[in-house]
Amino acid sequence: MLEKPKKKDLTLDPENWDAMRQLGHRMIDDLFDYWENIRNEKIWKPIPQEVKEFLDQPIPEKGQNPEDVYREFKQNIFPYNKGNVHPRFFAWIQGTGTPLGVLADLLASGMNPNVAIGEHSAMYVDRQVVNWCKELMNFPSEASGILVSGGSMANITALTVARNSFRDEKIRTQGLKAASAQLVLYCSTETHSCIQKAAEIIGLGTAAVRKIGVNDHFEMKVEELEFQIQGDIEAGLLPFCIVGTSGTVNTGAIDPMDELLAVSRKYGLWFHVDGAYGALARLDPKYADRLKAIEEADSLAFDLHKWLYVPYEVGCTLIRDAKKHRDSFALTPNYLIQESRGLSGGLDSINNHGFELSRGFKALKIWMSLKEHGREKYAQMIAQNNRQAEYLADLVNMSPDLELMAPVSMSITCFRMIKPGYTENQLGELNRGILLRLQEEGIASPSSTILNGKYTLRIANVNQRTQMGDMDLLVREVLRIGSEIQ
Amino acid sequence: MLEKPKKKDLTLDPENWDAMRQLGHRMIDDLFDYWENIRNEKIWKPIPQEVKEFLDQPIPEKGQNPEDVYREFKQNIFPYNKGNVHPRFFAWIQGTGTPLGVLADLLASGMNPNVAIGEHSAMYVDRQVVNWCKELMNFPSEASGILVSGGSMANITALTVARNSFRDEKIRTQGLKAASAQLVLYCSTETHSCIQKAAEIIGLGTAAVRKIGVNDHFEMKVEELEFQIQGDIEAGLLPFCIVGTSGTVNTGAIDPMDELLAVSRKYGLWFHVDGAYGALARLDPKYADRLKAIEEADSLAFDLHKWLYVPYEVGCTLIRDAKKHRDSFALTPNYLIQESRGLSGGLDSINNHGFELSRGFKALKIWMSLKEHGREKYAQMIAQNNRQAEYLADLVNMSPDLELMAPVSMSITCFRMIKPGYTENQLGELNRGILLRLQEEGIASPSSTILNGKYTLRIANVNQRTQMGDMDLLVREVLRIGSEIQ
Repeated sequence: MLEKPKKKDLTLDPENWDAMRQLGHRMIDDLFDYWENIRNEKIWKPIPQEVKEFLDQPIPEKGQNPEDVYREFKQNIFPYNKGNVHPRFFAWIQGTGTPLGVLADLLASGMNPNVAIGEHSAMYVDRQVVNWCKELMNFPSEASGILVSGGSMANITALTVARNSFRDEKIRTQGLKAASAQLVLYCSTETHSCIQKAAEIIGLGTAAVRKIGVNDHFEMKVEELEFQIQGDIEAGLLPFCIVGTSGTVNTGAIDPMDELLAVSRKYGLWFHVDGAYGALARLDPKYADRLKAIEEADSLAFDLHKWLYVPYEVGCTLIRDAKKHRDSFALTPNYLIQESRGLSGGLDSINNHGFELSRGFKALKIWMSLKEHGREKYAQMIAQNNRQAEYLADLVNMSPDLELMAPVSMSITCFRMIKPGYTENQLGELNRGILLRLQEEGIASPSSTILNGKYTLRIANVNQRTQMGDMDLLVREVLRIGSEIQ
Repeated sequence: MLEKPKKKDLTLDPENWDAMRQLGHRMIDDLFDYWENIRNEKIWKPIPQEVKEFLDQPIPEKGQNPEDVYREFKQNIFPYNKGNVHPRFFAWIQGTGTPLGVLADLLASGMNPNVAIGEHSAMYVDRQVVNWCKELMNFPSEASGILVSGGSMANITALTVARNSFRDEKIRTQGLKAASAQLVLYCSTETHSCIQKAAEIIGLGTAAVRKIGVNDHFEMKVEELEFQIQGDIEAGLLPFCIVGTSGTVNTGAIDPMDELLAVSRKYGLWFHVDGAYGALARLDPKYADRLKAIEEADSLAFDLHKWLYVPYEVGCTLIRDAKKHRDSFALTPNYLIQESRGLSGGLDSINNHGFELSRGFKALKIWMSLKEHGREKYAQMIAQNNRQAEYLADLVNMSPDLELMAPVSMSITCFRMIKPGYTENQLGELNRGILLRLQEEGIASPSSTILNGKYTLRIANVNQRTQMGDMDLLVREVLRIGSEIQ
């Protein structure tokens, strides 16, 4: 018999399980204290220099006990949070999360399954959640889908399928160099930057992206689109895809979905919808009709960490033609061969439908959240955010010192303060000053954008903690700070 | 004054905070009970049909209380876990996670920052962890890096930079169709499938991937590589990148790093190392020399959810030339413009270095884990897994009924049971039967692969709970089951 090495077996499990368990309890308590009181806390605090220095130290050689690690976290990391859990966070488009969503992440991480392959419960939860996503979007049950990290990955996944499915160009196997001509895709000047980035990554290049102009509602001009497609065809290029946006990042504008769908059918193009932010607005009856054509799209990308309010990260791609989806990504090496039974049995490997092999259990937070609240409550919440944006616009319109900068669409309100005799430049500086002071005084976190060359405050609201009264407060504080800035 | 809508503000926060807090405590207790006792539990259980049916119901319209949701979880999901938290999980290459790593995920999800942009603590933690990754790999501090979901994303991120940086082809802007010829990359027949998938996604096509043969240690043959490169140059193609693997997925083989580096320099090619599994083996003194050349690579991909034992998902890409990295991905739309102060100030946006815009706080689990254990402990743990694999090989070599199927490299041991007079086919069926019964009896979860056409059991060990004694038990049970199968 071989002699077993005598050294004690090492592990990373705790020496003292009870102490670590108590630490877990303390974390739960600290998080709940944080959430319960967040409305009374400042939304943002500057990070002290010594904290930045602490977070710039080299890798630790020796370990320290978990309680000390947590103490360091509480002192240096926890207090300087971004703030999108706060009721007056309106920057970019960032969801709030919910307590049960967070606890679901705890369970997912604790089970720690790799949700790519194999016969285990997380694979079935993942499949169920993808099916629920189809139901939310009224996609057919035969459609295919995959959960990804968010909108950027959801869009690039769909565009890869669109590219690979284009006629008989065999781009997956032969590459773009061998294509019969340059492929071209269409979106608007207001389209999210991830579409351009995706085109660059998948080898089409920036030059392949046609950014079509928008009308004064920031919606794609369909005539210009068709004109461009015809011109590209005449130039010997290969138009292959139209990207419509359901909720632009700047103003929440919705491209004319019906018309884009019709144009895509007329020219035999793939119709992809980037609904990262606003596809779920279809649950609000006010937007259901305008978003109806999403159901007919060839592919759809949308986020769950925005308007389903689950914690980061999770988005979804739906692909109408399941075969095209799988044909773009399926690849089974010897070490992943599926069996008919046992751990290696079960459902089709999820990595046959996307970029990644290893995948975490991000489905669980969606599963628990939809169980907790049901579709109806989400419809109400999304509608509430939209009504809050409209109410804010009403407040803006009532004030002679404020100016609405774009039509309100979905839950984004763009406005600025104005002062008589100010130049555009001065107005920009004024509103930039208001924005920074709102953040620095810990009151609210809007962000900004540029619309038609003009700097504007931008209130984007996918926040489940926001109340109507927060809009009153925001306007009051904008006016106060603006009047204080000379 | 505008009249505020009278309806009560809705929220997804709990009606009863205390009850939800208690639920959080129960989850902590249930997880700790699970981990503390896992050695005595079956590693895998089949999923009953009624559970599969439960996990196939349509989307809930109405909500239910969180306790009920958790009860459903405990009944239908928790018991049928994949098992990679168990000490005898050896399938594919899947890490175990640690209790503090899981608690870090709880905190990360609870803070819920979007770690892409802005002045907040998570941005600094993310930067620090990337710097620690450079230290682990002895990359220069001026190098660039980004945390991603895992090896597949880490590899495709690096290959995109390699492609975009190739000479003056301007592939990011002009696309591959406009390149002066077809680009070609080199890897071995044992290279992970994600390299081929990446080449397909970024538009090079399967045809652009040259799979070079391997020697009897499953390492790339450098002569054949050079021969192929010369042939491709003569054929007017554009060799641009060599991918060396540090720890192949089948057998843990290490391509000859020094020689690949030399060939890449000779022909002016990008040298990328896929160290998803095994780059961290450089912390084991036994492998430090053979992996020394990794430090000179142009880019390196490696996972933290494998050999840093943190929960899913997190991997890392390092790029030696930070400018090339940023030039491949930077893109700043109007709504993301950085300010000099406030929430929108701070570090360079992380999305300038990768595919994604929104990103979760995956850095925290690495931060807390490296703080808890220090680099030294990880070096010991990785060495322990390697020694366990070697010990298993010794046991195999001692038994006349077992056959080692590949040289042991790092922590992968490939072997099979043999019986006199059995054909190859019968041996395959025998070992397949052993594998399935090991899983179905809940004893251990190896996986399988095919080596030189032969079916083999594959024990891949990045498990922080495995003890030497588990290897004895495994061999004993393989022999028992094998003798029972006729």
